[in-house]
Amino acid sequence: MRAAVMRDGALVVDEVAEPEPGSGQILCRTLACGICGSDLHALHHGDQMVAMAAEGAASMAEGMPTPVMMDLAHDVVMGHEFAAEVIEVGPDVENRSVGDVVVSMPIVWDPSGIHPLGYSNVYPGGYAERLVLNELLALPVPDGLDPLRASLTEPMAVGLRAVNRSQVKPGEAAIVLGCGPVGLAVVAVLALRGIEPIVAADFSPARRALAARLGAHEVVDPREESAADAWRRVDGTKPAVLFEAVGVPGMIDEAMKAAPRNARILVVGVCMDTDTIWPMRGIGRELSITFSLAYDPMEFAETLGLIADGSLDVTPLVTGSVGIDGVPTAFDTLADAGAHAKILVVPDGPAAPELLTIS
Amino acid sequence: MRAAVMRDGALVVDEVAEPEPGSGQILCRTLACGICGSDLHALHHGDQMVAMAAEGAASMAEGMPTPVMMDLAHDVVMGHEFAAEVIEVGPDVENRSVGDVVVSMPIVWDPSGIHPLGYSNVYPGGYAERLVLNELLALPVPDGLDPLRASLTEPMAVGLRAVNRSQVKPGEAAIVLGCGPVGLAVVAVLALRGIEPIVAADFSPARRALAARLGAHEVVDPREESAADAWRRVDGTKPAVLFEAVGVPGMIDEAMKAAPRNARILVVGVCMDTDTIWPMRGIGRELSITFSLAYDPMEFAETLGLIADGSLDVTPLVTGSVGIDGVPTAFDTLADAGAHAKILVVPDGPAAPELLTIS
Repeated sequence: MRAAVMRDGALVVDEVAEPEPGSGQILCRTLACGICGSDLHALHHGDQMVAMAAEGAASMAEGMPTPVMMDLAHDVVMGHEFAAEVIEVGPDVENRSVGDVVVSMPIVWDPSGIHPLGYSNVYPGGYAERLVLNELLALPVPDGLDPLRASLTEPMAVGLRAVNRSQVKPGEAAIVLGCGPVGLAVVAVLALRGIEPIVAADFSPARRALAARLGAHEVVDPREESAADAWRRVDGTKPAVLFEAVGVPGMIDEAMKAAPRNARILVVGVCMDTDTIWPMRGIGRELSITFSLAYDPMEFAETLGLIADGSLDVTPLVTGSVGIDGVPTAFDTLADAGAHAKILVVPDGPAAPELLTIS
Repeated sequence: MRAAVMRDGALVVDEVAEPEPGSGQILCRTLACGICGSDLHALHHGDQMVAMAAEGAASMAEGMPTPVMMDLAHDVVMGHEFAAEVIEVGPDVENRSVGDVVVSMPIVWDPSGIHPLGYSNVYPGGYAERLVLNELLALPVPDGLDPLRASLTEPMAVGLRAVNRSQVKPGEAAIVLGCGPVGLAVVAVLALRGIEPIVAADFSPARRALAARLGAHEVVDPREESAADAWRRVDGTKPAVLFEAVGVPGMIDEAMKAAPRNARILVVGVCMDTDTIWPMRGIGRELSITFSLAYDPMEFAETLGLIADGSLDVTPLVTGSVGIDGVPTAFDTLADAGAHAKILVVPDGPAAPELLTIS
């Protein structure tokens, strides 16, 4: 089948082996798969990602299961934000049938271990025509929910967990640094939770406009006014929770510098490089920094439900679509943050990213 | 009066102006004042401390009171861990009398503002024969409590707040990196709260022995075994809370590297320099880092009570005493962490630090 493959640090489009569903697994055709900033990171910093996963695995208590991480010397088909339609069920599958449209946390297991879908040499991710999932993790997409919207479950769940881990509550203010897909997901969940004001900052006018559509009460260009100054201007009295959703070196210290006394900082932007902070900033103002990764199964399922019932409107997030052949070009397009937020890979989509407004 | 003075980045012993108690203030003679690591920092990195205080003040909402920070171009008498006896009461003092023995949070206010005692050009701290306090912050030392022990209220309150902010609770394990006075205070409060196991690490055998006396269940030399490995050896199953009480560059990342998934890191060691972390460590394991500074008035008063009723035995913490004339020498002694934990300045004490065991 056709797939965009990470090979020798580059993306190439090639034919790859057809995946086969084992016991408890389902074979699906990809309907849509979002391109995630983590995949752009992985292409350039894959070795750091692998090293960090190994270190994390070593830190676990003995006997805990650890994922089978990718080997960059071999092909990897990325893509972990997908909606897919079941086209074949493997042995022992009881609750999913051909024709079901599903989303799933990007994890697949089999007797050989747990595989992170999208960062695995064994199972292809959503930048391929077909993929294999475990029945037990595949959630049916409610009738009437467009699979394009359903594919946003994964990135929106990242925002939901970040907001959960921040423990922000009504009566507090939120400052969101960066309005890429992660920052926008955070803004949407904050708005849903009734947080006010939400002050969001991004260099891109298009992304600021998206943040405003998703519920930010104030959007600023940090070259003109810092997010913290904007917060002081519009509120400045409620306890502030900062969300760092940029993920480049210097942003954590930037957030610490901007933070008022006792502020909480939630880091959800993935910075692959080492970073410099000034701990005295944290001590002097008694800050706390909480890191957030992914989501748990409950948060993933809750997010799907919130998208399905319209509580979370993901329409503004999707800005483009591309076919599998165009994935390498789409990565280049996304490398400099401009007008795009989320580009969806749709297997039979255009050869180069096209603007898409889902209706 | 005689005082150890910070002048041009050095400590000198000199005569300074006698402080005079204003409205609501009391004049006291210093009975004992502990030498704090922050004072060693201040002597060498005072400019950073001042800059950070200014930045913190600027981050406050408008109208909030901010302390009057020291100007390093003028004399500063440090010393903020004191017990003192009232020798004169100023106007409008109602609840304190000559002869009372008191401790106080190291803050003094007057119509000109709020002054951090020990980092002020206006009010001398405890490295002087006498000091002025506000009646309202001066807590009477309960009868029978040795003033030498009472002077430990301040550093022990730092440990109490750090433990409070960590939200550690029975059923969780604690890993304490660094067994200087702050780390030892943390160990003592953890033991009081019934945390088990407490694993403490320090290069110094003497400090490890003190940690064991104060309640650490396992002490390790990090050159032989990392604190995290020791935790895995003795427990490894309970959720772990790490306390960073060393305060030198690299320790926060060291704690992040050692931390198991979902661990909380409480930073109470004051690192004046910039520091390097690898945010992916935090994200990959969903760590949280909470910074702790000082204490609030309730925590300060609670700590005094715990020392007075014997719940917190501070005896092992005090290892030496010195007179005012010997403060510069004592700073040199403390610069390389050896046998000493806390050296108390006792105005008529020895000219060079002597070992002291309080009985």
